[in-house]
Amino acid sequence: MNKLLFTFFLFTLISSNQIFAQNSSQSMDSKIENIIKQLTLKEKLDMCHAQSKFSSKGVARLGIPELWMSDGPHGVRAEIDWDSWNHAGWTNDSCTAFPALTCLAATFNTELSYKYGKAIGEEARYRKKDILLGPGVNIYRTPLNGRNFEYMGEDPYLASKMVVPYIHGVQENGVAACVKHYVLNNQEHWRDHINVELSDRALYEIYLPAFKAAVQEGKVWSIMGAYNQFRGQYCCHNELLVNKILKGDWAFDGILVTDWGATHDTKQAALYGLDIEMGTGTDGLTSSLKNAYDNYFMAHPLRKMVESGEIDESVIDEKVSRILRLMFRTNMDKSRPFGSMNSQEHFNVAREIAQEGIVLLKNENNTFPIDPEKVQTIAVIGENATKMMTIGGGSSELKTIHEISPLEGIQKRFKNAKILHAMGYASGPSVYGRVVESKLNADSLQVEAIKVAAKADIVLFVGGLNKNHHQDCEGDDRKHFSLPFGQDDLLNKIIAVNKNTAVLLVSGNAVEMPWLSKVKAVVQTWYLGSEAGNAIADILSGDVNPSGKLPFSFPVKLEDNAAHAFDEFSYPGDGTNQEYKEDILVGYRWHDTKKIKPLYAFGFGLSYTSFEILNVKSDKRSYGKEDSITVSCKIRNTGKIKGNEVIQVYANDVKASVLRPLKELKAFKKVNLNPGETKTITLIIPTKDLAFFDDSIMDWNLEKGNFKLMVGVSSRDIEKTISIEVN
Amino acid sequence: MNKLLFTFFLFTLISSNQIFAQNSSQSMDSKIENIIKQLTLKEKLDMCHAQSKFSSKGVARLGIPELWMSDGPHGVRAEIDWDSWNHAGWTNDSCTAFPALTCLAATFNTELSYKYGKAIGEEARYRKKDILLGPGVNIYRTPLNGRNFEYMGEDPYLASKMVVPYIHGVQENGVAACVKHYVLNNQEHWRDHINVELSDRALYEIYLPAFKAAVQEGKVWSIMGAYNQFRGQYCCHNELLVNKILKGDWAFDGILVTDWGATHDTKQAALYGLDIEMGTGTDGLTSSLKNAYDNYFMAHPLRKMVESGEIDESVIDEKVSRILRLMFRTNMDKSRPFGSMNSQEHFNVAREIAQEGIVLLKNENNTFPIDPEKVQTIAVIGENATKMMTIGGGSSELKTIHEISPLEGIQKRFKNAKILHAMGYASGPSVYGRVVESKLNADSLQVEAIKVAAKADIVLFVGGLNKNHHQDCEGDDRKHFSLPFGQDDLLNKIIAVNKNTAVLLVSGNAVEMPWLSKVKAVVQTWYLGSEAGNAIADILSGDVNPSGKLPFSFPVKLEDNAAHAFDEFSYPGDGTNQEYKEDILVGYRWHDTKKIKPLYAFGFGLSYTSFEILNVKSDKRSYGKEDSITVSCKIRNTGKIKGNEVIQVYANDVKASVLRPLKELKAFKKVNLNPGETKTITLIIPTKDLAFFDDSIMDWNLEKGNFKLMVGVSSRDIEKTISIEVN
Repeated sequence: MNKLLFTFFLFTLISSNQIFAQNSSQSMDSKIENIIKQLTLKEKLDMCHAQSKFSSKGVARLGIPELWMSDGPHGVRAEIDWDSWNHAGWTNDSCTAFPALTCLAATFNTELSYKYGKAIGEEARYRKKDILLGPGVNIYRTPLNGRNFEYMGEDPYLASKMVVPYIHGVQENGVAACVKHYVLNNQEHWRDHINVELSDRALYEIYLPAFKAAVQEGKVWSIMGAYNQFRGQYCCHNELLVNKILKGDWAFDGILVTDWGATHDTKQAALYGLDIEMGTGTDGLTSSLKNAYDNYFMAHPLRKMVESGEIDESVIDEKVSRILRLMFRTNMDKSRPFGSMNSQEHFNVAREIAQEGIVLLKNENNTFPIDPEKVQTIAVIGENATKMMTIGGGSSELKTIHEISPLEGIQKRFKNAKILHAMGYASGPSVYGRVVESKLNADSLQVEAIKVAAKADIVLFVGGLNKNHHQDCEGDDRKHFSLPFGQDDLLNKIIAVNKNTAVLLVSGNAVEMPWLSKVKAVVQTWYLGSEAGNAIADILSGDVNPSGKLPFSFPVKLEDNAAHAFDEFSYPGDGTNQEYKEDILVGYRWHDTKKIKPLYAFGFGLSYTSFEILNVKSDKRSYGKEDSITVSCKIRNTGKIKGNEVIQVYANDVKASVLRPLKELKAFKKVNLNPGETKTITLIIPTKDLAFFDDSIMDWNLEKGNFKLMVGVSSRDIEKTISIEVN
Repeated sequence: MNKLLFTFFLFTLISSNQIFAQNSSQSMDSKIENIIKQLTLKEKLDMCHAQSKFSSKGVARLGIPELWMSDGPHGVRAEIDWDSWNHAGWTNDSCTAFPALTCLAATFNTELSYKYGKAIGEEARYRKKDILLGPGVNIYRTPLNGRNFEYMGEDPYLASKMVVPYIHGVQENGVAACVKHYVLNNQEHWRDHINVELSDRALYEIYLPAFKAAVQEGKVWSIMGAYNQFRGQYCCHNELLVNKILKGDWAFDGILVTDWGATHDTKQAALYGLDIEMGTGTDGLTSSLKNAYDNYFMAHPLRKMVESGEIDESVIDEKVSRILRLMFRTNMDKSRPFGSMNSQEHFNVAREIAQEGIVLLKNENNTFPIDPEKVQTIAVIGENATKMMTIGGGSSELKTIHEISPLEGIQKRFKNAKILHAMGYASGPSVYGRVVESKLNADSLQVEAIKVAAKADIVLFVGGLNKNHHQDCEGDDRKHFSLPFGQDDLLNKIIAVNKNTAVLLVSGNAVEMPWLSKVKAVVQTWYLGSEAGNAIADILSGDVNPSGKLPFSFPVKLEDNAAHAFDEFSYPGDGTNQEYKEDILVGYRWHDTKKIKPLYAFGFGLSYTSFEILNVKSDKRSYGKEDSITVSCKIRNTGKIKGNEVIQVYANDVKASVLRPLKELKAFKKVNLNPGETKTITLIIPTKDLAFFDDSIMDWNLEKGNFKLMVGVSSRDIEKTISIEVN
């Protein structure tokens, strides 16, 4: 036998030692069909629901593995007990904590999204997880949503572009990404039952695109259903959302998994596309009731329906075939790599994303960078200077191998400076679901902080939100738009004693900034994970030039945000229903169209250098409906240090039969430039991307006529507008 | 690219996505060398000790997986907590319980040993275990040893032949077998410290051969060290046993793992061949002391010794290279299958082994088989008729998906009979480590049983030992040779009311049978696992013709056993030391040489049919030292039903310079025959197997001269003796 033939022989041999791979030349579909023929109804149904908090059964007798899932999306969650939410007490599950997805979105860098996915996928794989529950792409509708930090901002195009490489990165490891929460889980308040009403146009233009991209471009293998209802049906078994759109129009061939405990009806779950039911309550039941998981909607109750003929068994077969397909892609794919955890590479990726995601919002008199060799006394004030942000926040909580706090990072980088520290305020310890009130005396903390501030050359106030309940945390929303725990008051008092005060905001949401005009600088740092303090120090010291851009608008006041511009029925609803009254005008679409100036605009972020944009043009003046528009420009770094800039292209339909937003993001590109360097950038926009979703025909509609293409460096900093025509 | 080339390309691609497989054409040794170069001392040491009760670390950052182990050898143990012995409460860990290894040995069927290994290996693999802690091949020295049921009897040749295919079966799954307990853990009493003294000859002739076969023929990938000491050094770091014999003379290239908590000295562990330290006590420490596992002998203490130069780092590298070699064979072998659990095939294997392992010891007037169509009333008496035997016994305890009790099996097979049942006696519930005394009134149980016995056509007394502490259970030995819980008394009373009484002994050890002459039949059933009752009913009903053979001698009284023929210093020792005074005369070697008639002899077992052995001969009269002797015979089934017989060949050195046993097993073969059928059997004995271990030259010595080869169907039923000569 020659060597190639032998290799082929070996390869065949290797693949043939399992019943489901007996004939490896079989197509996956016929293998699946073959397996299903051998299964009992009970075995099939067992695959369609949980067997523990984070796993579902395979078919042990046939060697079909179990499916193991883990919460993401910022790291692989610690192991918990089989059927309780207690930590299992393992010591091998401290992971790399990556920056929150809001930070990833702020990088406007799709390459970093791929690196993120690849690294977290490797960690999931090493931990023997088959499905990573993330990323999240729910659209940022209101700054009060407790879970915005886990998502990718307010713009459907940005979220679409960023989610795809993340999925590719994860899935290269033979681990399924699970894009969530499909769909309209845009608030945590009443999430478990609120019924969302909105126009088809808003659904298709704003809330669906990132999911569609995940399916069609990302080829994602699983999707998680949302808790809430849409048009009177729960999202995990919603005929329109799942059968018609996801599995019909988009031809999604993966599985729909519930959010934990989001199933409500057996028959709907069976008929409206749910594949795996997870998290239906069993806590405490297993001790008294042996097979608590048999009570799942898709377990015994569904079995009875099939046995009585109410549901056809082919319905179950279809679910099982999807589950098996996912298995062939993950735990039955022998070629998948082994994964890895906590490698230097992973920490580097985490740090790089943090560096590129941090947004410099204000920088009066070049407050930053601070020269580590010249600065004398830095006062670091604020609870968030030391608070661990990988703890709390809900299911995205992490047990990380290390989390460098902002204070630590600053101390390490500014070794020659005198670093003073005061807590300033105290939020009280966070316990998931409730806040234990602080025993610390707020007044004494303030007094101490003001004393410290007065002694410093510069004050770095590290505040913002945190992962406590009613802050950036799953399960409920923020109660106010302003900074909590008396920070505004404290800041005013600090500014009164030290004019040279800069604010570092640790949050996943916009906040009110009544003190803005009085501080020298503002940095939006997000939640940055393991390398938080290092990345912050990288930016403050100038080791890295900031290049993050806001993935959502910061309104001046809450009422300036679209969701809050109407009555309470728009947000948060009446307890039963709500209507998205702003319709398609979410985020900057609202601000721009309604001419309500934001505090900081979508796409905005400063740099330590300056750029000049020249020669902005389109390749043609006039385009057919199937054409692509090529926009090009030259960009030059006119400053003295290297830096990144994000070229953004927004479109406007000059005259349309329906209301169209003043601006919609249609392309962006991040470019790195040395001082004095010039690069030519091209951005491609398929003409069809200029269409709107037309309710009257229930399809995308590209009307002929003139369009404006606005090229700039934020949604409000447009350098040049090009006019084109669509025929 | 043509198809073969593409396949080759794909294959290369698949193998190259991990650091340790970057160049898949590298030899395993150079890959290992390559990895070790990249490791820190801490990382290396972390691989050399536990991180939890049943796992040890890999190198997460490099994607080198963790090692997960599970107790065997009769099934894959249920999941337990990370760092306590509590069950983890998983519901996916109910396994197939296979018969105890004593039963496997009793089959004298190497093919079944392979099937056993293959099936249990598949279960281990499905459960994501990399090392299965079994099989055990400690020699049956005394019937009091609490753990004999986990071993393969008293004969080194039988154990050697049976252990090899088991290993092959397990390891085909990419799961390492771990042969235990190396060596001389022949009693549980004082096992954690007793120092064993014995001659080199006894060590090499009796206690080492099964381990040597496991290494050299089985190619086993791991060995577990014993708790006890040998010549003043603990077995897990014993210079002679590990460095000289196991890794030196036998060239073992796998890893030596401790038994749980069997390490006692850092420097010895480092220098005398221990590779992975497991089970050193940390219970309850993790809550207060974060890194309890860092206190392991091979963790921080060893690190200090390496850092101080007391131990060279190359010593650690050697251990790590062995661990990595095991990983390349198991969890880093992508070609390994997925495994399976609880398949019908596994239950069939369990039942088949049970059927062939059950030994019919007495069968007066053809008491068995019982015709299911004719029998009217059967009284099933005895606690063991219903007691679950997969629970208790120590680390071999199992959570099995089902365990058919003898009563259930009998009820199912004898549907037309009236089955009466009485418990007769009560042992009290078993809790590992102690026995909770029964609250049941022994007298009333007796009275009820005698009433029931009087009413039946036949009494099946199902008694024996159980898995309670001081019975067949890890941790200590039996206290008496006789049946416990008043069974002898009860049996005598039953016989008084019903002469047609048969005894089924559920045990892993020989017991005293003072009532033997008064009962009609005796069946040795062992511990049979999931299919216990079915297999018993198969034999009782005649569906299967018994063919099990005793793998150890049943003495009439305890003093007839070699270990008990001397003072207490021979067994159990003085609390510090003991000496194996019977030397090489273990089991039938003692009985035969000393002419002490056993109650039932090694190799004995009845059948429902009869066999005739003819034409016994050797191929030559005279052999050189490198020759092989071929013994042949014809065997005919002279009865009316098909059956199996085991042809056994024992050797005797007619005149030797040292004392040699009267008989030593040198070959066996199990043969299946239809009624009237004749087969010709050949058995091969390498002449060198006739040698003895000569202490004076510390080597095997084959003295020239005459040898007798005794061919028969038990050690006491010799059909024909052949004389040969060795030149």
